[in-house]
Amino acid sequence: MRFSFSIEKLVDIIGSAEVEGSTNQEITDIASLSNAKAGDLSFLGNKKYTREVPESAASVILLPNTYEGSPSENQVFLRLENPSLALAKLCEEIEKLLMPKPATGIHASATVSDSATVDPTATIGPGCVISDGAKIGAGTHLEATVFIGHNVTIGNDCWIKPHVTVGDYCEIGNRVRLHAGAVIGSDGFGYETVNGVHHKVPQIGNVVVEDDVEIGANSTIDRARFSSTRIGAGTKIDNLVQIAHNVETGKGCIIVAQTGISGSTVLEDYVVTAGQAGIAGHLKLAKGTVIAAKSGLHSSTSPGQVLFGIPAIDANLAHRTDVLKKRLPDLFKRVAKLEDDLKTAE
Amino acid sequence: MRFSFSIEKLVDIIGSAEVEGSTNQEITDIASLSNAKAGDLSFLGNKKYTREVPESAASVILLPNTYEGSPSENQVFLRLENPSLALAKLCEEIEKLLMPKPATGIHASATVSDSATVDPTATIGPGCVISDGAKIGAGTHLEATVFIGHNVTIGNDCWIKPHVTVGDYCEIGNRVRLHAGAVIGSDGFGYETVNGVHHKVPQIGNVVVEDDVEIGANSTIDRARFSSTRIGAGTKIDNLVQIAHNVETGKGCIIVAQTGISGSTVLEDYVVTAGQAGIAGHLKLAKGTVIAAKSGLHSSTSPGQVLFGIPAIDANLAHRTDVLKKRLPDLFKRVAKLEDDLKTAE
Amino acid sequence: MRFSFSIEKLVDIIGSAEVEGSTNQEITDIASLSNAKAGDLSFLGNKKYTREVPESAASVILLPNTYEGSPSENQVFLRLENPSLALAKLCEEIEKLLMPKPATGIHASATVSDSATVDPTATIGPGCVISDGAKIGAGTHLEATVFIGHNVTIGNDCWIKPHVTVGDYCEIGNRVRLHAGAVIGSDGFGYETVNGVHHKVPQIGNVVVEDDVEIGANSTIDRARFSSTRIGAGTKIDNLVQIAHNVETGKGCIIVAQTGISGSTVLEDYVVTAGQAGIAGHLKLAKGTVIAAKSGLHSSTSPGQVLFGIPAIDANLAHRTDVLKKRLPDLFKRVAKLEDDLKTAE
Repeated sequence: MRFSFSIEKLVDIIGSAEVEGSTNQEITDIASLSNAKAGDLSFLGNKKYTREVPESAASVILLPNTYEGSPSENQVFLRLENPSLALAKLCEEIEKLLMPKPATGIHASATVSDSATVDPTATIGPGCVISDGAKIGAGTHLEATVFIGHNVTIGNDCWIKPHVTVGDYCEIGNRVRLHAGAVIGSDGFGYETVNGVHHKVPQIGNVVVEDDVEIGANSTIDRARFSSTRIGAGTKIDNLVQIAHNVETGKGCIIVAQTGISGSTVLEDYVVTAGQAGIAGHLKLAKGTVIAAKSGLHSSTSPGQVLFGIPAIDANLAHRTDVLKKRLPDLFKRVAKLEDDLKTAE
Repeated sequence: MRFSFSIEKLVDIIGSAEVEGSTNQEITDIASLSNAKAGDLSFLGNKKYTREVPESAASVILLPNTYEGSPSENQVFLRLENPSLALAKLCEEIEKLLMPKPATGIHASATVSDSATVDPTATIGPGCVISDGAKIGAGTHLEATVFIGHNVTIGNDCWIKPHVTVGDYCEIGNRVRLHAGAVIGSDGFGYETVNGVHHKVPQIGNVVVEDDVEIGANSTIDRARFSSTRIGAGTKIDNLVQIAHNVETGKGCIIVAQTGISGSTVLEDYVVTAGQAGIAGHLKLAKGTVIAAKSGLHSSTSPGQVLFGIPAIDANLAHRTDVLKKRLPDLFKRVAKLEDDLKTAE
Repeated sequence: MRFSFSIEKLVDIIGSAEVEGSTNQEITDIASLSNAKAGDLSFLGNKKYTREVPESAASVILLPNTYEGSPSENQVFLRLENPSLALAKLCEEIEKLLMPKPATGIHASATVSDSATVDPTATIGPGCVISDGAKIGAGTHLEATVFIGHNVTIGNDCWIKPHVTVGDYCEIGNRVRLHAGAVIGSDGFGYETVNGVHHKVPQIGNVVVEDDVEIGANSTIDRARFSSTRIGAGTKIDNLVQIAHNVETGKGCIIVAQTGISGSTVLEDYVVTAGQAGIAGHLKLAKGTVIAAKSGLHSSTSPGQVLFGIPAIDANLAHRTDVLKKRLPDLFKRVAKLEDDLKTAE
């Protein structure tokens, strides 16, 4: 058994909830409404699954206050404002049980420079390498085989997964999570071509990752040509994302998997780029811009604009033209018929 | 010399073949029909290269039974049912010669938890880290600097390349190959946004990788929000692929490089996604669905459907509209002429 | 302070320049024209920023010979032919100051096979693994946790960043830079499917990386099915790029982030593929071909061709159809009106 919660303990974790019904089951797993069985907790996070509630075999269901209907026998409903948020709180508690905080200190197999500073409450796992002049903050956990370059600073309470690289001079804030294989501070891609030879433009800036950022597995954030590439506070970056040199993101941006952002582009706060979006260089994306999945953006945007397509245009117009595109074979026939009819009419 | 085979040895490896002609050359390399020279083996795996056979300088050529024509002087034809499969068998033999099985045991520089279990016939290479409660099966080879999380299970005869991460609680079957830098069990990308703050939804599920799966270099497979992300038996995943949380694939799926599959989408057996395909979340792809390269799929599919485009539509229709799209400049002119003519006619 | 240069030292590094004006500032940082403050050096690399020069607070500005106008008080103009190239030279000097060459030799935590050869002027950092028969050239720097497979050869003066994998039998030339997490020599993706079972085709070739190549972070270059995947001299590859088995690139190609190139495709010299481009297999891209961002190429090209779209077509035609596509809703209305008018006219 991985965990086991009574109803009382659940309510205690979640905060307040209106309890209806009763069960003799302890909760030992979480499942979707349709997959749940006795002993499972489930939840209604999306209205479209409402009709699955009455048929669910879950022992406990988290429901919005507005849900009408009553629990089955040996089943408990917990009504509250935001079931998804309540579930997140519960999962956080379970995560603590499943993945206990490791012992603090430096593993014997780690290589730590004499000129590096590691807070005594930090955990440096097996095979990590910490270079000259680097600083690791309180409560930060480098899981294993993490590489920290020269003069890097890492804040407090960060969690850095295996095989991450943080290159020389980069600055990482507090409560940052870097997932396995992420590369912070790779060289920007810049050359001056003279007589057919691409001369490298050395990239002497760094990357600044502000507080509460999360960066996904195998994502790459290039260091600036000079000054800083910057990831704003609370921005969340998914896996396999490419951020080029001198990009700056605002606060709370959401950058979904396999997005690519070209050099010197600026994202204001709360910009969203969906999966596999591509964004050209030297653009400014205004606050709250949304770039739909697989789109290719070549121009700056205005606040709250939603864009789709390659090249990306207003999403509504894009959807209309996509519908009409499917009717092109018919349109060509209609135009040919018009030409025939007009010829006949003459 | 890397290897050297006589004709007799070749036939022995391949199984049965009809031998025509003779050569005094030992076979010491493999090459395409047009690049081959004396001492090379070549093959006809694709009909479109048939006319290259008579001109090939290869000492041995693998040919389908149906091939008409005779070998040149000092050349051997080996006729059999499936030349590509025969070549695969031969390459397997060569691979064994070139990359001999390493000695079993745990390298002195590896870090293995006291509570982990490593089969005595497994090989744990330099710099590997095996965490508490993990189990490594018989004949499995962790090449170097592989990270294995808490309570992970790895089956028998797996081959895990350098810098791979297998996160806590993930389950890997038998005969699985994980290529360099692959990340199994990164966190799914999920947040609850309250008052402009993205609260992380902890991802407490795992990844289950069934038997005979291969996962490419630097691909990322996210752990489930709860329960499991699942890669079905015999599924083959190429490099730089992103599989989001709670995705499930059937048996024998083929997922080509840089594909991205969003959360909770289900692929039934033998689905194929070509390079750089993108698939939205919460979809069901029926058995044998094929998503063409660079397509963006936003809806569920029926068995055997072939789709192309962004958004992906029936591939035949997509190809027709793509042809017509190129004729749009002409169509606009024709419509303008029609308008003129009609005005004149009035 | 990270660095400090006098005007004399600057001119000395850059080579010749025409000096106008004077300043009492030492140069201690580099910034764009609009961000620069006293003590910063800036430059005019792109005409579109010309109007920012007079307002810039930079203490020194690198300008093209043709620039008209004079420096402000306490400001120096350095006029020369190519400001961007001059900046690159300066950055190279700064890079040497910021990232000094490490001490030569093999770190105590590295694992080096007895049958490997490491030049005494090479640097092998912490946690590196060098397998049997490998050779590391003079002046080459393996930063940390680099994996070098069996019988690999690495030339002189290479710089290999953390977590790079160079697989068995691969050959790396001189002055090559491999960025963090890059995988050279992962298996090509090839199977023979018999009765619903995907049999792996072992990939027994290698990867040859010629002189002066740079390969970005977390990019993956597959080994050949047989013979070699080849990256031509002076080719520059960005982050998260996928190069499949048996691809060959010419000299001086530029392959931008998240590009994917399918098996056996050949790029002649100076081909450019922009971000997120996808290229099908078995094609030949003639010298100087340019594939625009996000394009999907399905056919071979002629020299200097510029292509855009999915599928990629002549870029000019693609841009014209993209404009017309936005006018489709209007076109459909016009055709409907024509049909009405013609009916009325009859």
